[in-house]
Amino acid sequence: MWYNVSKTTLSVFREVTVMDIGTKERIAMDIAVAQGLQQADLVLKGGHVFNVFTRSWEEADVAIRGTHVVGIGAYSGKREIDVRGQYVTPGLMDAHVHLESSMLSPRELAKILLLNGVTTVFADPHEIANVLGAEGIEFFLSETEEMPLTVYLQVPSCVPATHLDTSGAELTVADMEALTKRSPRVRGLAEMMNYPGVINGADDVLEKLAAFSDRIIDGHAPGVTGPELEALAAAGVANDHECNTVAEAREKVARGMYVFLREGSAAHNLVDLLPVLDEVDERRCCLCTDDRHVDDLIEQGSINYLLEIGVTQGVAAERLLPLATLNTAECFGLRRLGAIAPGFTADLCVFDDLERFQPVHVFKEGRPVVFRGRLDWESKPLRGVAVPTMHMPALDPDRFRIPGEAGKQLRVLRLSQNNLTTEALRLPPRLVDGLAVSDTERDVLKLAVCERHHGTGNVGLGFVQGIQLKRGAIGTTVGHDSHNLTVVGVDDEDMAVAANRLRDIGGGIVVAADGEVKASLPLPIAGLMSDRQADVVNAEMKQLLFWIHELGVPEEFNPLMVLSFLSLPVIPELRLTDRGLVDVTHFTHVSIWTD
Amino acid sequence: MWYNVSKTTLSVFREVTVMDIGTKERIAMDIAVAQGLQQADLVLKGGHVFNVFTRSWEEADVAIRGTHVVGIGAYSGKREIDVRGQYVTPGLMDAHVHLESSMLSPRELAKILLLNGVTTVFADPHEIANVLGAEGIEFFLSETEEMPLTVYLQVPSCVPATHLDTSGAELTVADMEALTKRSPRVRGLAEMMNYPGVINGADDVLEKLAAFSDRIIDGHAPGVTGPELEALAAAGVANDHECNTVAEAREKVARGMYVFLREGSAAHNLVDLLPVLDEVDERRCCLCTDDRHVDDLIEQGSINYLLEIGVTQGVAAERLLPLATLNTAECFGLRRLGAIAPGFTADLCVFDDLERFQPVHVFKEGRPVVFRGRLDWESKPLRGVAVPTMHMPALDPDRFRIPGEAGKQLRVLRLSQNNLTTEALRLPPRLVDGLAVSDTERDVLKLAVCERHHGTGNVGLGFVQGIQLKRGAIGTTVGHDSHNLTVVGVDDEDMAVAANRLRDIGGGIVVAADGEVKASLPLPIAGLMSDRQADVVNAEMKQLLFWIHELGVPEEFNPLMVLSFLSLPVIPELRLTDRGLVDVTHFTHVSIWTD
Repeated sequence: MWYNVSKTTLSVFREVTVMDIGTKERIAMDIAVAQGLQQADLVLKGGHVFNVFTRSWEEADVAIRGTHVVGIGAYSGKREIDVRGQYVTPGLMDAHVHLESSMLSPRELAKILLLNGVTTVFADPHEIANVLGAEGIEFFLSETEEMPLTVYLQVPSCVPATHLDTSGAELTVADMEALTKRSPRVRGLAEMMNYPGVINGADDVLEKLAAFSDRIIDGHAPGVTGPELEALAAAGVANDHECNTVAEAREKVARGMYVFLREGSAAHNLVDLLPVLDEVDERRCCLCTDDRHVDDLIEQGSINYLLEIGVTQGVAAERLLPLATLNTAECFGLRRLGAIAPGFTADLCVFDDLERFQPVHVFKEGRPVVFRGRLDWESKPLRGVAVPTMHMPALDPDRFRIPGEAGKQLRVLRLSQNNLTTEALRLPPRLVDGLAVSDTERDVLKLAVCERHHGTGNVGLGFVQGIQLKRGAIGTTVGHDSHNLTVVGVDDEDMAVAANRLRDIGGGIVVAADGEVKASLPLPIAGLMSDRQADVVNAEMKQLLFWIHELGVPEEFNPLMVLSFLSLPVIPELRLTDRGLVDVTHFTHVSIWTD
Repeated sequence: MWYNVSKTTLSVFREVTVMDIGTKERIAMDIAVAQGLQQADLVLKGGHVFNVFTRSWEEADVAIRGTHVVGIGAYSGKREIDVRGQYVTPGLMDAHVHLESSMLSPRELAKILLLNGVTTVFADPHEIANVLGAEGIEFFLSETEEMPLTVYLQVPSCVPATHLDTSGAELTVADMEALTKRSPRVRGLAEMMNYPGVINGADDVLEKLAAFSDRIIDGHAPGVTGPELEALAAAGVANDHECNTVAEAREKVARGMYVFLREGSAAHNLVDLLPVLDEVDERRCCLCTDDRHVDDLIEQGSINYLLEIGVTQGVAAERLLPLATLNTAECFGLRRLGAIAPGFTADLCVFDDLERFQPVHVFKEGRPVVFRGRLDWESKPLRGVAVPTMHMPALDPDRFRIPGEAGKQLRVLRLSQNNLTTEALRLPPRLVDGLAVSDTERDVLKLAVCERHHGTGNVGLGFVQGIQLKRGAIGTTVGHDSHNLTVVGVDDEDMAVAANRLRDIGGGIVVAADGEVKASLPLPIAGLMSDRQADVVNAEMKQLLFWIHELGVPEEFNPLMVLSFLSLPVIPELRLTDRGLVDVTHFTHVSIWTD
């Protein structure tokens, strides 16, 4: 084993998992407490209790015995918490998230999620799987055991994501089937990003769909509608979180899919998609974050921030809460979760208001894990240090040279404003000494993706418009989905400085300028996650952003998340991998030069 | 084996169950057909297609491949059926039904249900189980195999129903657990009628709840609200079909239960309960028939009749259809059923209008089973003859004598108008020669329940108000739930004639008057079901009703169903079993005489 697994030592959660009474005795006690014949273990007294089945609030006590709610009415308990004037809701659920995007270890992320009222997440560990394969998923399973955040893991469907780049590991169908037997928390197939493979009936994709045909198959199909959408649904794809328009979301719901309204750090779909609630059965909609950075998590929150946005947009809290609770539980076939009702798991939030959704208390399986806004969970820190995952040679600035071609134009990735798609532009190059170089006037910057897993020395080169850097370079080993080293820069020297520092520190994010490193955030866990505390990571991130803006990027723009998606060759239209530019529409490599 | 199992021979349904292609190949074909790259097996062309997810109609073709829908759009197929101007909906589902109440064999009932658009039912075989135990359930499993009606069986929870009467058989917890392993069609625990046992934490009930704690536990809790309802829900009871008022239904939904809006032959709750749709999340409501007689099935229909009632009440078809399709599938945790969408089972109805809901065509797993209103399914008739289940002595009229008691009043079961409950009245007896006898002036008639399973000779005696018979007697071996012989009559002689004829014909229903049998309907399968065709059974039933009305019962009243419920000691307030009167509120026997 390459890491030391640290487990929660707080005995309180041991009690929850190690039940020393039988089911029959437990039911007998539940029946007694529900009728007030015995005291509840815990009673939340006199709050406004959200009823997800009537979408209304009841003035009542909530009685909890063991891990479950047993009654809503008038109760007394061994412990009582006064929640008069406050709002009691089911614990929030994130229908689709990549834990790795937080850049925090799972336990450190769990703390933040709990502080924001999130008690259950459906995670796709495909970032770490692309770097470390099944071993990375085993690491997540171990790290998330006996935590007061329930982490369901979907088995990554696309490792490697495509044949158009180079990942650190591969998950075969046999690996994937083996993972489903590892834990009841392993549920189904994670987002089928190779949706062209589904539509075209690619053999390997069909094998995966067949292997998971009795389980929930998550989708990923930006912009797919019409007959191709029929094909995805017929193939068993059960949900989608990539909708950009109400019409697209409506069509997906109409074809039987659950639609996840997403608000990530890079992808901001929620406001655009909320009107779909008026057009479809709302029960088929859920909320998800997909990818959220540590800074957004700390400053804005998680699913509770989506509720805040929704309310700000004029959607009633009573309509939004089911999207973050019962609907998600139903989407994943989990009974007795996502509601405050007898027999349902006592995952609960208490809020002061229905505007900010910053929980006062959070209860997980009947135990307070956040009390008066403070975390009441002690998790030993991750003690192990990850194995090195930076297997690449040091790079000379020459490796980033792009010789010009007479009379040709450049294919350029143009960032879009509100989502992760890019537009494929054709622009004349800026040529200096016969070499195509960055042009800050038109904001056309050199982009490189360097293979870091197997020492191949692959470097893919291209240009991107929209980053707005005026000097220096930004490098990152977070590069969906293969997580090679992506670096964008104004000059080749700073690009090499950034890349080589990343190689030395085991991965992370680095800003370089004037031939030296200005700021860095080490991410030694697979080159994706820090082993430090959230506030430290956030401070390092602030320092990175300070320098990014110092080097010319406008204050209101954080280029890091979009940068980390430029190498993902499944989102339209143009991408760059370690093996070169990819035309996503035709799912093939194309030259940087065109007529 | 005491019966000969006759199986469907139509090869078409063999194809459905015996798939000779693998899952992967099936998915590949689905993908191709969904995109119009291959022809569909069957296309319904140009109908108004109901979308249960948007509650709206689409003008589109429905493409079917194998057993599933693969696309909604523009398609061509090897076979095409023109449904322009017609309404295509998912096949209807009955959330809770006792097949036995039809008095038809399962195959004969299936024909009628299919003709009415019902393609899936959730059946509780507790009538036959009370007579024949696990052997009766095995009979149902065999009889319903390879049928174009999917019959899910819930395991009867209360055999015997109570300790207050005498059933023909017993199902132990071990028997019940064994049944869950018999077939994937055996789903969960059927209605927990012993709800006082749940509320009081009775040991045997707790054992059953524990054994089925991971499965769906159906409820039966008329009038239960408040802390007792909290207890039922906490104990795992997941649904209820016994609501009498909107307030009761609302509270049950609010406590996490699915509520089934029922319209049976005796219990008419639908009209009263429909307004609950405005008060709760409609997704938690379903439709069920519970008990429907053959005549109502033939003349009114099944779940389609409930839709007709709902529309007549001014509820839009678009709001009603989910209650008979998707909601029911979700209630029982069945994915890919209850909607017309790619990947969903092609159980479909085609209607001419949204008023009568009499299907033109019905498709089961992609095959037409009703075409142009005619059944396209040949089922061999049930060939076996049931073992005798009438184990009782012949009865003299003397067995029905009730000696008077000076100064005492009679406890009388008073029928209610619209549901199965009774009121416990206290009335002065009509005494003749010191014997309490029927009094047609006040419509107080003698009622007897005679044990018929074990030859004990038990006869419970009482009086009932509301039957309105003026002379003669009516006897039946359909008597929920123990199915002893119930007979009501104006004089003891005719009661004995009816009882003894029932003993001779293996059970059924008999009308006697003037010392002779006037009409009879033999029900040789467990004393509950006929072995004849539906139209024969219906004709015999008509003859029975002719005589019942000839003997004084008003034309608009059919007393047979309520008669068969008078011995069920779990519905308030007063009942009669073979061991005497039962005060249901206190769940104990009481004397026929009171102060």
